[in-house]
Amino acid sequence: MRRGRGRQQDSAIAAPAVAQLPWLKVDNHWSPVEPLPPEHLEKVHDKSMEIVENLGVKVLSQTARDLYREVGADVNDSTEFVRMDRQLLLDLVAKAPDKFTLTPRNPDKALLVGGNRINFGMVSGTPNAHDAINGRRPGNLADYIKFIKLGQYFNIIHFFGNQTLSTNDLPANTRHLDTTLINLTLTDKVFMALSIGRGRVTDACNMVAIARGISNEELAQSPTAITNINVNSPRVLDTEMSDAAITMAERGQGLTVTPFTLMGAMTPVTMAAACAQANAEALLTIALTQIVRPGAPVVYGNFTSNVDLRSGSPTFGTPENAKANLIGGQLARRYKLPHRTSACNASNCVDAQATWETQMSLWGAVQTHGNMIYHSAGWLEGGLVASFEKFIIDVEMLQYQAELLKPVDVSDEEFGLDSMVEAGAGGHFFGTAHTMERYQTAFHQPFLSDWRTNENWTADGAKTATERATEIWQKVLDDYEEPVLEQDRREALEEYAAKRKEEIGDGEP
Amino acid sequence: MRRGRGRQQDSAIAAPAVAQLPWLKVDNHWSPVEPLPPEHLEKVHDKSMEIVENLGVKVLSQTARDLYREVGADVNDSTEFVRMDRQLLLDLVAKAPDKFTLTPRNPDKALLVGGNRINFGMVSGTPNAHDAINGRRPGNLADYIKFIKLGQYFNIIHFFGNQTLSTNDLPANTRHLDTTLINLTLTDKVFMALSIGRGRVTDACNMVAIARGISNEELAQSPTAITNINVNSPRVLDTEMSDAAITMAERGQGLTVTPFTLMGAMTPVTMAAACAQANAEALLTIALTQIVRPGAPVVYGNFTSNVDLRSGSPTFGTPENAKANLIGGQLARRYKLPHRTSACNASNCVDAQATWETQMSLWGAVQTHGNMIYHSAGWLEGGLVASFEKFIIDVEMLQYQAELLKPVDVSDEEFGLDSMVEAGAGGHFFGTAHTMERYQTAFHQPFLSDWRTNENWTADGAKTATERATEIWQKVLDDYEEPVLEQDRREALEEYAAKRKEEIGDGEP
Repeated sequence: MRRGRGRQQDSAIAAPAVAQLPWLKVDNHWSPVEPLPPEHLEKVHDKSMEIVENLGVKVLSQTARDLYREVGADVNDSTEFVRMDRQLLLDLVAKAPDKFTLTPRNPDKALLVGGNRINFGMVSGTPNAHDAINGRRPGNLADYIKFIKLGQYFNIIHFFGNQTLSTNDLPANTRHLDTTLINLTLTDKVFMALSIGRGRVTDACNMVAIARGISNEELAQSPTAITNINVNSPRVLDTEMSDAAITMAERGQGLTVTPFTLMGAMTPVTMAAACAQANAEALLTIALTQIVRPGAPVVYGNFTSNVDLRSGSPTFGTPENAKANLIGGQLARRYKLPHRTSACNASNCVDAQATWETQMSLWGAVQTHGNMIYHSAGWLEGGLVASFEKFIIDVEMLQYQAELLKPVDVSDEEFGLDSMVEAGAGGHFFGTAHTMERYQTAFHQPFLSDWRTNENWTADGAKTATERATEIWQKVLDDYEEPVLEQDRREALEEYAAKRKEEIGDGEP
Repeated sequence: MRRGRGRQQDSAIAAPAVAQLPWLKVDNHWSPVEPLPPEHLEKVHDKSMEIVENLGVKVLSQTARDLYREVGADVNDSTEFVRMDRQLLLDLVAKAPDKFTLTPRNPDKALLVGGNRINFGMVSGTPNAHDAINGRRPGNLADYIKFIKLGQYFNIIHFFGNQTLSTNDLPANTRHLDTTLINLTLTDKVFMALSIGRGRVTDACNMVAIARGISNEELAQSPTAITNINVNSPRVLDTEMSDAAITMAERGQGLTVTPFTLMGAMTPVTMAAACAQANAEALLTIALTQIVRPGAPVVYGNFTSNVDLRSGSPTFGTPENAKANLIGGQLARRYKLPHRTSACNASNCVDAQATWETQMSLWGAVQTHGNMIYHSAGWLEGGLVASFEKFIIDVEMLQYQAELLKPVDVSDEEFGLDSMVEAGAGGHFFGTAHTMERYQTAFHQPFLSDWRTNENWTADGAKTATERATEIWQKVLDDYEEPVLEQDRREALEEYAAKRKEEIGDGEP
């Protein structure tokens, strides 16, 4: 007994900065929420097929157009438009798997992408950073490293998006080598490669193979890398994107295809049109991946919100955004594809607005069974800022979602009918045997919610959740531990990056 | 044309303080989210029937026990326990309607209670008020009036709960007359009567009949009044509550029956047990209403959250609370009863925590098709405070829910294929004819979300949503207009209240 207590004290001394959920597989076993009745979903499908057949998508790359032409698409090299018969399109899309696994250098953190599995991703693509101590500043390497450490620390963050934060203080043509090296040393989770052209994704593929200690052939059978291909809505697939998509498909690595559409700007102003247009854009690009490599692991992405029609500003976390997330899942299921969606907001600060907007899009994303939920921690200001405080708040909110989805145990002993007799009518259950056996794990224990009495909370400085978050991210950074990486692999990665920087010089990767 | 413009200018001058949604019927046409698979739901049902049959509920009122005995329940007057055969119970519960209408003095604001209809209710039962200007103070008449005006102003508030705020500066034995008079003059919406004993609900029934200009007999056929009956969990129905329930049933008025259960305190520490116990308590009390008046309009209430087992504090908006809301709806549908649930939080201030907790419970409430969602605007600090700023934020969040649930229009012209040609690949849709025809109503226009650029937002004082809410509730109070009430009815109401105060004197109502 004494020995046991001693160990408890030891572990109390070495207690982590934050008590959090373990690494876990989050599954949504509930029926997805579906705003479109089946016949309306079919109408959206049908209209998107009209777009594919009659309007087409402008594909800027000759290589990509040639690939489409080879399988019988209607390709016009002078206008650059690609159109396709719907049956041809659907046959190609049907070659894509309905689920696949991404295995990072730590195989315990492999992700199933598809089915009911929910994976939460870090904010990505932000040009600026913000925290309450240092204010708003352009993205830079030091902050990039901090965000990677924060994302590694919290188990509820399943993957990193493409470029958590811009590293504006690094040369643009080689920064992908620095950030990939950081991603492969400071975390052992799945991360996205920057999808600008062939060179960058090739480097990412080569480096993840080194980090796993496997060959490129082995990597093609067990993908690690994944990237995000944005269609330039309306209806343009540019060369940088199609090159990246082709390369990743060739290498057997993961892809998400995501038309980024703000209704009223990049699509017509209605939900029906936005869904149909984005669907056409996504499917035509997904078809390209299947031309390159039938069975290439690809995710149906949707990222549809609306503009503020008074100002033209982008908005996120609106009712329209949440509904578009839900419908995106319906469409992904329609084509038996994994689904990528997002949780975002457009607030200028880490306040109630940032929170309710994120909750709107997050609930939509989780209730549509979003397999990869991008931007789910740290996103602020419509994606212009990665926020340290918002990251902490979002992690708490993601943990709430994971706990919400936990199945209810209805085994006999859970009902505790004996304890109802023990407590008696009008009594309480604090001390019943049934409670004592379970109280330590009965409920989710948050790290940020403050449930103290108003008196105690006031005596402790009356701190808001945002103020408490400032304390927490600092503690977490102190507490962060780098995941083990074999020294030879680390050296090989450093060598690869150095060699490539030399090769690239002032040119393009 | 000029005349038209002139009118537009006039209406701009007389513009309301806040642009808001019109009064509307909010329906959730989507399939409800159901955490329990059917066989697990049946197990919860079965265990709750064991509780009804074997453990029973302690019913403190002899009158109520006699009513149970008359229909064949197992009643023990010395222990005060009432037990009941499950078939007898279910037969009684089956007499209750699956939906009914509550008609306030303004029939345009009648509420359907049941089916897919979602009605949002004002915070109620709070002992304190708070706003950012005046701080936290005990509930009082002046603040009560302000909250009633705010709830009347916003169309998304469909009804008022029982006592929006305590009026501690009024005598306890007659304050229900003052507040009912205020409710019947300053608003024309449905409100709840305070359910302490026969006297108070009788006064409420009499006064709503006067306000509608109808007889008590007519009122019994067209209910206006509704009250909330809390079971004192675990398993006690006290006399004040059963007297109020019996009276309301006799008068044909609305009832919600709501065991207030915090898992770990008033129920065993597990979700399965909490649902089974609360279900037993609710159904046994609902049965009482049907003994008094078969077909009495009654709502299945659930209000289950958990305690913080480290401190014993109540918590709201937890994953457990949201899940309990969802399961509550499953149980209500199981018995073909309308459903009451809640949207709450336990934060000490109007911050991100208050917001994500409310969103958790609110999404649970809406996605389970909660027909009456209590406390959905203004609740703070676990119900100890009615907050002016939180009220404004909640109204915005409720409007988001209403907009989210709006069906998607998939008529041909909505798809705007012509506008896709007009915008062209790589173009934008800001100026297309399709956009111009729709832009004014295409998206929800919030009144609190701020989507300006960081530069503009900073130049305007960098105000958080909570700070902006302080400005808004003040403007709304200035803008409030009292709904018309015929002078003779107003006088009759004042007369009734005065006469009753005289009758009551220092006694009980």
